[in-house]
Amino acid sequence: KKWVTLRWLSKWLVMFSIGIMTALLAATIHFVVEKLAHLKFDLIKHYFDDCAKNNCLYQPALMWMGINLVITVAGAALVTFLQPMAAGSGIPYIKSYLNGVKIPGLLTFRAFVAKTLGVVMSILGGLACGKEGPMAHSGSIIAAGLGRGRINFCNGKSISFYSAFRNDHEIRDFMAGGAASGVSSAFGAPIGGTLFSLEEAASFWNQDLTWRVFFSSMVACFATNFLISAINGDPTKLTDPGLVRFNAFKFDLKFDLIEIPVFIFMAVIGGLSGALFVVMNYKLTVFRKRYLNKNWIKIIEAGLVAMVSAAVAFGLMVGINDCTDKAPFDSHAVTAAVYCTDKKHNSLSTLFLTTPEGCLKALLHDPFESHGPVSLVAFVLIFFLLGVWTYGLSVSSGVFIPSLAIGAAWGRLVGIGVAHLMPENPNLGVNSSLIKQLDVGKFALIGAACQLGGILRTTISLTVIIVECTDDISFGLPIMIVLMISKWVGDFITTGLYDMNVEVMGIPTLPFECPPLCDDLRASDVMSHPLATFKTKEKVENIYRMLKEETFCGFPVIEDDPMAPGKGKLKGLILRNQLLVLLKKKIFCPEGQVPPRNITIKDFRDFYPVYLKVSEIDLSDEEKSYVMDLKPYYNPSPYTVEQKFSLPRVFNLFRGLGLRHLIVTDEKNMPMGMVTRKDLAKFRVGSKRGLVKIEQLKIEDK
Amino acid sequence: KKWVTLRWLSKWLVMFSIGIMTALLAATIHFVVEKLAHLKFDLIKHYFDDCAKNNCLYQPALMWMGINLVITVAGAALVTFLQPMAAGSGIPYIKSYLNGVKIPGLLTFRAFVAKTLGVVMSILGGLACGKEGPMAHSGSIIAAGLGRGRINFCNGKSISFYSAFRNDHEIRDFMAGGAASGVSSAFGAPIGGTLFSLEEAASFWNQDLTWRVFFSSMVACFATNFLISAINGDPTKLTDPGLVRFNAFKFDLKFDLIEIPVFIFMAVIGGLSGALFVVMNYKLTVFRKRYLNKNWIKIIEAGLVAMVSAAVAFGLMVGINDCTDKAPFDSHAVTAAVYCTDKKHNSLSTLFLTTPEGCLKALLHDPFESHGPVSLVAFVLIFFLLGVWTYGLSVSSGVFIPSLAIGAAWGRLVGIGVAHLMPENPNLGVNSSLIKQLDVGKFALIGAACQLGGILRTTISLTVIIVECTDDISFGLPIMIVLMISKWVGDFITTGLYDMNVEVMGIPTLPFECPPLCDDLRASDVMSHPLATFKTKEKVENIYRMLKEETFCGFPVIEDDPMAPGKGKLKGLILRNQLLVLLKKKIFCPEGQVPPRNITIKDFRDFYPVYLKVSEIDLSDEEKSYVMDLKPYYNPSPYTVEQKFSLPRVFNLFRGLGLRHLIVTDEKNMPMGMVTRKDLAKFRVGSKRGLVKIEQLKIEDK
Repeated sequence: KKWVTLRWLSKWLVMFSIGIMTALLAATIHFVVEKLAHLKFDLIKHYFDDCAKNNCLYQPALMWMGINLVITVAGAALVTFLQPMAAGSGIPYIKSYLNGVKIPGLLTFRAFVAKTLGVVMSILGGLACGKEGPMAHSGSIIAAGLGRGRINFCNGKSISFYSAFRNDHEIRDFMAGGAASGVSSAFGAPIGGTLFSLEEAASFWNQDLTWRVFFSSMVACFATNFLISAINGDPTKLTDPGLVRFNAFKFDLKFDLIEIPVFIFMAVIGGLSGALFVVMNYKLTVFRKRYLNKNWIKIIEAGLVAMVSAAVAFGLMVGINDCTDKAPFDSHAVTAAVYCTDKKHNSLSTLFLTTPEGCLKALLHDPFESHGPVSLVAFVLIFFLLGVWTYGLSVSSGVFIPSLAIGAAWGRLVGIGVAHLMPENPNLGVNSSLIKQLDVGKFALIGAACQLGGILRTTISLTVIIVECTDDISFGLPIMIVLMISKWVGDFITTGLYDMNVEVMGIPTLPFECPPLCDDLRASDVMSHPLATFKTKEKVENIYRMLKEETFCGFPVIEDDPMAPGKGKLKGLILRNQLLVLLKKKIFCPEGQVPPRNITIKDFRDFYPVYLKVSEIDLSDEEKSYVMDLKPYYNPSPYTVEQKFSLPRVFNLFRGLGLRHLIVTDEKNMPMGMVTRKDLAKFRVGSKRGLVKIEQLKIEDK
Repeated sequence: KKWVTLRWLSKWLVMFSIGIMTALLAATIHFVVEKLAHLKFDLIKHYFDDCAKNNCLYQPALMWMGINLVITVAGAALVTFLQPMAAGSGIPYIKSYLNGVKIPGLLTFRAFVAKTLGVVMSILGGLACGKEGPMAHSGSIIAAGLGRGRINFCNGKSISFYSAFRNDHEIRDFMAGGAASGVSSAFGAPIGGTLFSLEEAASFWNQDLTWRVFFSSMVACFATNFLISAINGDPTKLTDPGLVRFNAFKFDLKFDLIEIPVFIFMAVIGGLSGALFVVMNYKLTVFRKRYLNKNWIKIIEAGLVAMVSAAVAFGLMVGINDCTDKAPFDSHAVTAAVYCTDKKHNSLSTLFLTTPEGCLKALLHDPFESHGPVSLVAFVLIFFLLGVWTYGLSVSSGVFIPSLAIGAAWGRLVGIGVAHLMPENPNLGVNSSLIKQLDVGKFALIGAACQLGGILRTTISLTVIIVECTDDISFGLPIMIVLMISKWVGDFITTGLYDMNVEVMGIPTLPFECPPLCDDLRASDVMSHPLATFKTKEKVENIYRMLKEETFCGFPVIEDDPMAPGKGKLKGLILRNQLLVLLKKKIFCPEGQVPPRNITIKDFRDFYPVYLKVSEIDLSDEEKSYVMDLKPYYNPSPYTVEQKFSLPRVFNLFRGLGLRHLIVTDEKNMPMGMVTRKDLAKFRVGSKRGLVKIEQLKIEDK
């Protein structure tokens, strides 16, 4: 009983540490990126302003492109060579992992280094990406590391602290906490973060775990708040619970019923343009997979994107030359004058000479007159294309912020349009310019939500995240409405960006429900067979050969029936990993003798999570003739179903219990085959243009 | 394929209607209660003010007690005689239902009438209860009614519209939407409402359902907002998304790091007093179950409580005579002068001459000097005792508002204390009185959260509900912290109020995880046996007898083995309800003949959800000798496990899949016994004073 309490306590403690560490990481990244980015853009701005007079504008252009190129290539190389799993935001991987798929390499120390350093370089390299998405992945890696109580370094060395939680189930629970903490400290959204972790992991939702996940994400949010407030000067002010916030409006956001139709119209646009984004990115991803699959090509492509980003931004700033005298909302923002005079500055410079986050902030909060329609249209087009091109590069990058920025820009356009359409708005009383600013910010916010909803097809958790970011619940209602509508419109055309990713990568995630129209399929129709089975006492040679030849992760153990060999009743299930450890530890003996020793759960844990490979096992010919007694090790009550079991019910078992393999037996309890996740994930329902269709997916073997 | 789309659409449509209807109900109740309560208290106030001068104060006292008595007795009689299931808030029942327990009578038209009319009467009757809790139950009934497409009136008549969704699974999904809508329109908390529905129903959490539930709760919130805004004058203002809100603070709520220790201290108090509340109510509930179980005694008790409530309030107002000249926050509030002169009024009159909600609002928002410490102490003590006494009466009532009011009152006390301890607070600049009001309101809010957390042991959903009610996410952090701590402190002493309720009522809900230390129990240890089985072709007489004698809800169907009767292999599972319908429809024939007709799923649906009783079936002796062919009707692939299956895994199956019965088979696939929810719910882990213990519960047979 004491043991139960102790274990309970230590789980909370680990969750607490996860929250703290994630917040530390978030604050560090935030600090480093902000300082360095400011340095970089300040430098460019100076050359800009000097050269506009001296006709040497090629200097800032080349310098900008050069800086971007060098940093981005370094970041891309880091990701590509250290751990390619660290590319992108990592959210599709994390979601799949929580769904129950094992993804090797996802939670390693290498991935951590590549992810965190990589994202700093991507943003400093001027790519159209954010640092928020990758926080979920970084948080998960921290959680997995703390849960295992061990860090594995590159060269096979490791430091080990404790081993109490070394099994997939526990680690997955901690990882849920880590992902939640990551999201929570990125967006200051503890509730949204918790939901983010839990909605995918149906089998693991329980009250106790939920509290722990919530606790760690609250700790992360609080600690981030404390640290960022401290960086900004006063640690007790606690006004920055996350890395990105939309709440700096001067008034409370209010909306009127008559604005709802405008919002709905915007949601439709968001859904359509989001679907376009997904389609274009899909084509690009397929193209990349086919032609750009060499490491050096990937790095070159990243560098190219970084240079083009700088070049295009430069071109727009010089070409449009939209001058404004309105001070930007953020007093620290870098503003370049370029050709503007009279203390005016180039309005696009506040959008391009900053991080994508700063750009989003400017679009939401800058005064009404800051950005002219022409600049905004150009910005939307360019940023949309850059966003499509950037997502999927072999760099560590998030798609949240660019999506939001695109949406905020065209939302601002709509806001300007609305303000022009009804100039005699009775609300425009004394503070007309302030109200205009608020209004245009409101439309920018709605536009941002629409665009994000159209690209990512926000789930409940994303909705909550956006609402928490906005920090204004009564304005949450229109946000929820537009997120929902843009999701519907988008879903009518394509799947969401993350789902598209998962599909292209062939990760066998299971949807929430069995696809319809599969009711008459049986377990025997989908199972893999013939089956590789072991007897309770099996020859070492057979085991070794089977492990070498087959890739199955689990093997049924059957009764040793001398009359009908290979046809015995099912006794249990043994995992590939267990067999490998048993072979490695040489737990076998000549037939008839008693094995020299047993091994305990501790021995298995020592190998977790990087289990052995068959090639690492050496057996002499004599040893191969020995016999291994599997009785103490196999799981004597694996989940089984009869062959006539219907597919929807098999599906529910996998989804509800988080199974990885299920043994199919005949009426006499003899194993006939195995159903694995991959067998089920093949069936997927696509609903395109309102029609339901079922397709079989190709699942990659890894 | 068209059918799939149509079905999908109609589910959304039903969810939409659920949201609208729930909002209509909420707005109606709100309107009726507010108007009538205002009339009642205005009347009492006039007598109060007149009689204070003329020394006839017995008049308002008697009148107050009389009004309370009459209305409460009427409300209690309504609930007790029409549908006793409508007593209390209904939340424990709804949670159990979502957990997978069938509760007869919970979702009937009678329950709806008793619940909605009952709650209006309880509040007009002056009981210390709220109208918010019951909204979850009312919403669920609306949802079940709309889902079934049929209303069953008292006298067996019914109106039927459509029958597409008449099975437990679909109705449960709609019910989740209804409960969410109810919570959402009560508190203006669409996210909290969604979580409320989903956290208990682990087996039914899936993305698609989540969206539908979210949709209906959003519709409910929006419609409530619209309707209440319309009642208040301007339907397009949309500022009242729920019946109760805590957001009317004049400034944004801010907190400072140094206030956190005070909050934590308050959370500990909240946890302790919450546990005291639960313990006292538990003793009372047991006492009531034993001695006050007659209908007329229940009604008398309710009347007594109503009279005592009035008498005590009267006594306090006259006895303490705390005069204030501060205008109350709510300009419509009824204020009685009693003995006060100089346009002052009795400060307790703003707390007692109003609904409990109005009282809560006054405690949160009234000016700093409005309520003196003596009045507050007296209020806390009295309201605490009345709250304990009221919860569990046979009236329709919620415990949310009284809990919050108790906490707000002592939170306000703490706020006054803090203000006195640091008079030289540097924040107190120009607007010192306004800031004091804000501060005292802030502490009142934290106190309310602490008390609620201590009594109900808030889950994630309640946390979100409170945060949404407060409408200020950055202040959500301290609220989350105190809710968590008060939960921990309370859990150390007792279970929460709802869990206590569920336990006392003996409802077989399953916890989220198998209790620890049960690992070596097997399925065969917990199963019910011997087992009642049927052959695939069974004599009508046997079926009839078995249904009469046994109370099982499902029967295994076995192979007809002439060699060993009653020992055949398992073929499937047939439900009691199916057999009853088959008998009623006389789907049998003399042996050797082909049955005259088959019945379809439509026929079964016609009987849903009020299935037949055995006593309603008449069979002639000839018919009893006939044979029924079960083959077309039984479920050929029920979930089964082998007898050696461990208890935690059996548990996971029930929890993960929402099972009601599981067949246990031996190695040869012959059924040996059945495991039902009740068999599992017996094992429950209690953690009292930090020690873990496992107890076997008594589960009532209903």
